[in-house]
Amino acid sequence: MSTYNPPLKDTGFVLDQLVGFDSLCESLDLQEANMELVNVVVEEAGKLAADVLAPLNSVGDQNGATVSEGAVTETAGFADAYQQYVENGWATLTGPEEFGGQALPNVLGTAVNELWHSANMGFGLCPLLSQGAVEALIAHGSDELKTQYLPQLISGEWTGTMNLTEPNAGSDLAAVSAKAMPDGDTYKISGQKIFITWGDHQMASNIVHLVLARLPDAPAGVKGISLFIVPKYLLDEQGQPGALNDVSCVSLEHKLGIHGSPTCVMSFGDNGGATGYLIGEPNKGLSYMFTMMNHARQSVGLQGLSISERAYQQALEYSQERLQGSNPDGSKIAIINHPDVRRMLMAMKSGNEAMRALALSAAADIDRTHHGDAESKTRVELYTPIVKGWMTELAQEITSLNIQVHGGMGFIEETGAAQHYRDARILPIYEGTTGIQALDLIGRKTLFDKGAALAQLQTDIRSTVELLTSSSTAELQELGVQLNQSLNAATAASNYILENAPSDKQLMGAVSFDNLMMMGYLVGGWLLAQSALKADQLKAEDNAYGEAFLSAKIATSAFFADHYLPRVDQHSATIRTGLGKTFSIDIEQL
Amino acid sequence: MSTYNPPLKDTGFVLDQLVGFDSLCESLDLQEANMELVNVVVEEAGKLAADVLAPLNSVGDQNGATVSEGAVTETAGFADAYQQYVENGWATLTGPEEFGGQALPNVLGTAVNELWHSANMGFGLCPLLSQGAVEALIAHGSDELKTQYLPQLISGEWTGTMNLTEPNAGSDLAAVSAKAMPDGDTYKISGQKIFITWGDHQMASNIVHLVLARLPDAPAGVKGISLFIVPKYLLDEQGQPGALNDVSCVSLEHKLGIHGSPTCVMSFGDNGGATGYLIGEPNKGLSYMFTMMNHARQSVGLQGLSISERAYQQALEYSQERLQGSNPDGSKIAIINHPDVRRMLMAMKSGNEAMRALALSAAADIDRTHHGDAESKTRVELYTPIVKGWMTELAQEITSLNIQVHGGMGFIEETGAAQHYRDARILPIYEGTTGIQALDLIGRKTLFDKGAALAQLQTDIRSTVELLTSSSTAELQELGVQLNQSLNAATAASNYILENAPSDKQLMGAVSFDNLMMMGYLVGGWLLAQSALKADQLKAEDNAYGEAFLSAKIATSAFFADHYLPRVDQHSATIRTGLGKTFSIDIEQL
Repeated sequence: MSTYNPPLKDTGFVLDQLVGFDSLCESLDLQEANMELVNVVVEEAGKLAADVLAPLNSVGDQNGATVSEGAVTETAGFADAYQQYVENGWATLTGPEEFGGQALPNVLGTAVNELWHSANMGFGLCPLLSQGAVEALIAHGSDELKTQYLPQLISGEWTGTMNLTEPNAGSDLAAVSAKAMPDGDTYKISGQKIFITWGDHQMASNIVHLVLARLPDAPAGVKGISLFIVPKYLLDEQGQPGALNDVSCVSLEHKLGIHGSPTCVMSFGDNGGATGYLIGEPNKGLSYMFTMMNHARQSVGLQGLSISERAYQQALEYSQERLQGSNPDGSKIAIINHPDVRRMLMAMKSGNEAMRALALSAAADIDRTHHGDAESKTRVELYTPIVKGWMTELAQEITSLNIQVHGGMGFIEETGAAQHYRDARILPIYEGTTGIQALDLIGRKTLFDKGAALAQLQTDIRSTVELLTSSSTAELQELGVQLNQSLNAATAASNYILENAPSDKQLMGAVSFDNLMMMGYLVGGWLLAQSALKADQLKAEDNAYGEAFLSAKIATSAFFADHYLPRVDQHSATIRTGLGKTFSIDIEQL
Repeated sequence: MSTYNPPLKDTGFVLDQLVGFDSLCESLDLQEANMELVNVVVEEAGKLAADVLAPLNSVGDQNGATVSEGAVTETAGFADAYQQYVENGWATLTGPEEFGGQALPNVLGTAVNELWHSANMGFGLCPLLSQGAVEALIAHGSDELKTQYLPQLISGEWTGTMNLTEPNAGSDLAAVSAKAMPDGDTYKISGQKIFITWGDHQMASNIVHLVLARLPDAPAGVKGISLFIVPKYLLDEQGQPGALNDVSCVSLEHKLGIHGSPTCVMSFGDNGGATGYLIGEPNKGLSYMFTMMNHARQSVGLQGLSISERAYQQALEYSQERLQGSNPDGSKIAIINHPDVRRMLMAMKSGNEAMRALALSAAADIDRTHHGDAESKTRVELYTPIVKGWMTELAQEITSLNIQVHGGMGFIEETGAAQHYRDARILPIYEGTTGIQALDLIGRKTLFDKGAALAQLQTDIRSTVELLTSSSTAELQELGVQLNQSLNAATAASNYILENAPSDKQLMGAVSFDNLMMMGYLVGGWLLAQSALKADQLKAEDNAYGEAFLSAKIATSAFFADHYLPRVDQHSATIRTGLGKTFSIDIEQL
């Protein structure tokens, strides 16, 4: 098993130099939040992540949760770790102060969440889901529900879940069939939900299920779905968990990865109906879920970075230990000195840095959005499917490279490389598959506004190209040429889409994946180019980063440009072949 | 679990139309071998594969082999299946007649091997290794060893293994340290070997281990390795398995996939030395191993096709059953009609057809090589690292697409999609990692002859471009334009390599992977373009394929050109950035 070293310096660099954390906090009227606080917070979180959560990662993989008589027992050691997480206040980081939160910016919460998921993705899913529930309640819950549930969800005393999927309603939520029957002020919820992450466990004194269900008179389709709170334990008059509600875990899924995270089949209402409380208005559940989903999608994208970072660290460590081949003097060569191994490590490192830049930029845009900044809102809406879709796809490649660096040992489970690879495979699936993200990006985020948000992004990238090409540093000039070429290729593809896709739904769907990946590599390359510009500028100044670190930032950006930016052109070329032969073969001939 | 449908028509099309099986057999003086025979053989093999081996695939995954007191017990049911495989003569297909083989061409054996590995890759590894042992004995064994071992290896009564790897000697065979002490006419072998596929089992009455070891006076490095036969049971005077040799299985690896295939730590000589017999001359073991490895590498490349075909079939089946979304009339839509799902299926299908075209073309070149054709020898040497490297890398993508088509269900082990994905992950590792293949292609196969073999390939592709662009079919003209562009991009990168890599070992290694992948997509696209030309020609003739099948062949080629050929340009662009920043970051900053 590999150790985990929280990448504190890299995180600090992105927050300080790319995100501009201090000025962000000023603009948000957060007087006490600054880089000094960031460094303390991230370092402390890093300790819990590295010392407590990371060692439990393989334990969870090998000893997943079990279910008996409707109740789930999580991996031994997880409850104690969760207790430490709660007692140290980590759950409260970004919650609103009136409900016990620390009201720190979302971007700092995101930086910290990266560490949890790197250390132990299966464990990290539990707080991830709670954060989603908090979001939904803040945005749409009544004052009463907020008062009843938010303080304990924000403290971490209780955890939250999202209950959307049913056997016949996966990506297609219009097919949701769970029922909600009015019963006085409350509702009787019944139905089965599948793929419910951390649907049950013993780590918290209550579990707050958010459940999509239909009222008796609800319209068909997505316009007839309402959102309910269904607590595992009903609250007594003191607001404490009392009687067990009519909800239980029927079974656990046997999964490829994230064994530490129980994936439950949940049954509501086996004994007459689980008591539920309506959130917001009837039949608006889908739009409320989207509030949660946007946050959850960014969180899952972040997991793509987290697991890739962990995989990179493991490959880096192994490549320095493993000796293969000899120098002319007979001394053995560590494989990190083999060019193809070094290429793989650089591909992992540069991919991770692009993902971190994107994840934290998008997270900061959410902070600005909450503060009323319309431009940031537009930008983050464009970013969200890229964060979720592109980052989780790239995570497949990077976790696979870790196995490849290990050679035969990578295929042996005890090494631990395979776990990261298996765990990562869920990421392009849950919270909306890559296909769903790709449709969101090309449809709602590109065609819907006739490319306006995209045009602004292109303008911003063009500005960076100009800064690069007018730089006096040769490496940056070269980067400018490469970024410019990719921008042009991407723009050609985007224009093709804007011209042809509005009249052709099939074409839109057929090119949507390539469009998503193209935009991911373009944005990743652009953000790293900004990172290189900053590093170049800092090299002339007195600072704590040091020459070697800053030069490495420039080299990482250049490596990304050499090895990933050509994929922009590749996806652009494919997009411009349009629908092509996608549907020209009859099903019988497939 | 999915059913397996042997792709008989596709196999027949490639053998008949691309390989030209009948004229190949004529040129090999094989009077009785023709397409008629092929169809019978492949159909019969398909029955065993689909009816007997395929249902055991998930059984092997869930109930892998076990080891007790040095002996391995394979998955229940495998022994009976192996018995059927042997009794029906499948092991004898390509063996020489003097030792009981049927002397059928290697290309037919390859077509049949595709089926075994699709049905059950873990099982198929056992005959795969035996075939390697047969190859080595035929090429380098004494008449005595041949007489003693070949008939039973060819009949399948006994199985074979390859014992190369040691804990400190993986890709670097120079580090092999197993010892061989002369003892009269024989040798006492001692040492530990790891990652020994099917190193022990109860399916056959003997196991013939081929073992790399060092003689006492051997030079250091690869020039001091000799190859030995070490039978599990020593042969008695009647040539029958007698006393147990001093060899045992110490333990089994706990692997990510291919659980049905026991991966053994083998110990030789715990009790004074295992009796071994020298193959060929002392200290030539490495070059003998290469005889086996070239065959084994093509076989592993073939496994990449096999598992991708199985994954494709599963995705195709599921996508027709799974309903998500509704038509305006309320009827449900099977996801095969979703454009992004259709794109994934077409990507799988076109990738598989390119791989099959390459695998069988390379296999036919081996037949021609054995018949003394120097041009085919040159070509197949160029092809081998592409077959092994590119096909196994592409298999990662295609088995992953199968999971993606399944959505959440793909992550659930019971679905079976995850098994193919896990099983496939070994393919770019064993029999020489992708990095090793990439070095072989760029070094021994490209720089060593100063690009001569490559130039011939480019000339051949150019001829196909001319046929395409001069076609009266618009689709083929378009294909010609695309193939020409890719050829030019690849040639630019190859010329860059030929100019710069001879003087720069680091650059050679750093661009080797991109070169391998570039060549794979180029050759795949070229072979499918030939397939399209043949299909176009056949459409004007009277034949049994039918219009829909032939049109699909053209569409598949065009889809490959739209979706995979742009990767040629992408890899070319990366190659031409050279060593770039691969080594410019110090290890401390990684």
